[in-house]
Amino acid sequence: MPIDSRVEFDLIARIRARAGPGDPDLLVGIGDDAAVFLPTPGLALVSTTDSLVAGRHFRPDWSAADLGHLALAANLSDLAAMGARSRWALLSLTLPAADPVWLDGFLDGFLALAQSTRTTLIGGNLASGPLNLGVQLIGEVEPERIARRGGAREGDRILVTGSLGDAAAALELSERAGPELERRLRRPEPRLAAGRRLAGRVSALIDVSDGLLADLGHLLPPGSGAEIELGQLPASRALSAAFADPEQRWPLQLGGGNDYELLMTAAPGQVPVLAARMEELGLELSDIGTLTGRAGLRCLRPDGSVLDPASIGWDHFAD
Amino acid sequence: MPIDSRVEFDLIARIRARAGPGDPDLLVGIGDDAAVFLPTPGLALVSTTDSLVAGRHFRPDWSAADLGHLALAANLSDLAAMGARSRWALLSLTLPAADPVWLDGFLDGFLALAQSTRTTLIGGNLASGPLNLGVQLIGEVEPERIARRGGAREGDRILVTGSLGDAAAALELSERAGPELERRLRRPEPRLAAGRRLAGRVSALIDVSDGLLADLGHLLPPGSGAEIELGQLPASRALSAAFADPEQRWPLQLGGGNDYELLMTAAPGQVPVLAARMEELGLELSDIGTLTGRAGLRCLRPDGSVLDPASIGWDHFAD
Repeated sequence: MPIDSRVEFDLIARIRARAGPGDPDLLVGIGDDAAVFLPTPGLALVSTTDSLVAGRHFRPDWSAADLGHLALAANLSDLAAMGARSRWALLSLTLPAADPVWLDGFLDGFLALAQSTRTTLIGGNLASGPLNLGVQLIGEVEPERIARRGGAREGDRILVTGSLGDAAAALELSERAGPELERRLRRPEPRLAAGRRLAGRVSALIDVSDGLLADLGHLLPPGSGAEIELGQLPASRALSAAFADPEQRWPLQLGGGNDYELLMTAAPGQVPVLAARMEELGLELSDIGTLTGRAGLRCLRPDGSVLDPASIGWDHFAD
Repeated sequence: MPIDSRVEFDLIARIRARAGPGDPDLLVGIGDDAAVFLPTPGLALVSTTDSLVAGRHFRPDWSAADLGHLALAANLSDLAAMGARSRWALLSLTLPAADPVWLDGFLDGFLALAQSTRTTLIGGNLASGPLNLGVQLIGEVEPERIARRGGAREGDRILVTGSLGDAAAALELSERAGPELERRLRRPEPRLAAGRRLAGRVSALIDVSDGLLADLGHLLPPGSGAEIELGQLPASRALSAAFADPEQRWPLQLGGGNDYELLMTAAPGQVPVLAARMEELGLELSDIGTLTGRAGLRCLRPDGSVLDPASIGWDHFAD
């Protein structure tokens, strides 16, 4: 169900020309009723979808290329959290106007990230209406390496890749955010390589898209809880410079979303191996707490005092 | 990137409860970062996406169940046009409000059609914003049976399943449309079984979503054209009753979209076999014209005179 048909064909021709030669497993690409591809024998398929909506997920001053990157990155992060490789993408764009300049910018951001993650754009859909940028991704994973959310056990360590809070800081500082924080918000780097190396050795894995506490809540089996050591929350240099007072920094690191790091639980004995694997990627792995057998969450300051999540506006976790 | 997180979880729990037990090939369903499934060894995968946008693809008085059916049907029709079976669906819903009653209605329509086509809902995404109902489908097809658009040859017959023009008539008549025409518009039946039986014996296949002339245009190799016999265009009893004058009916049948029939080209010798296969399904197959070696389109009335598509507001075909 197209924009005006003729305009739609022009835009599709543009996308098709830029999508480039497909991978050898692609039998039918852009321009037919549906895309057809051959999956790798023996692998399971991993599928996810996410969309960016005007006025919700980005600011009006962001470039089309930022949106192209971000729309794909959010989906890639979900594949990373399953331990999967990315393979094929579909684009479902609802656009207020058929603007080829905007579309070219969007494709700049989208296709650069697609290429660096070996993702082939194989099809999609264009419609006319309020801006809605949908991406669907299909990846592959060895069935024995699928990283689920549900396997955390009491006594497991809680670990996170990279650093937390940059995206939330960029949102809070708005125009006063420096380029490093701003880049983290607009051009997040999904942790695909990390997910591949963690899968099979963690008890549970998820990406930090909604915020540390929200996403940690998804990893906790019923009746279990967590103890977080606030002093261990990893902060980038840019975040520490912008928020030198940890009492200001922790709420951003606990509640802020859009970091797209990987959060996991693992048996204590696995931690050194996992840290070594992340080091191969130049990525920090921080041990930030323990999974406990008592429901509820405790955030402990370095001096042993407790930070109440409700005091920073957080009320979801207890549910 | 959720609506308000807590409301999102409630809605997702609702969808998850109703999606029912997955098929045995589903390893990870709704509620993780992504869905994981095992494809059938030896088959190719077929993937498509389509979305319904508020104010474009449906009228405000349509029920949520109508929209659930239609959003899935439009995607199923694309799989039918590849000769594929439907297997797995993702839902990407952008909703102005988190309304569980609306969602239940939507799921009524969506899941009834999913069940009857053996499609399993495996995941998706909820966001807050102007209504946008996206569906992504993954199906399977034998590599040797893939029905593409590109194989039409001079001298091939042009064939279409079922009847044309009902949906356009319902749109034109609006509240004066009877229940049969209205049903055709809101509850189209994607021709999956027909696609399976046609695949491998047709030279090109497409679904009629944009209108007969528009979709026929996609099947014509460069430099070729088509001759359509207007007297052979299949009309339902309801359409013939509402538009007894063929001069009024033909424009609806040539230009109107949303019929979701299958349009194909085939060598003349294949026509009896194809017709017999459609008869097994209780479905008419009409031989409506010929693919010619001369660019352009000729629509011939039963008396041999020519109907100019431009005279009915059609100007796309010549491009």
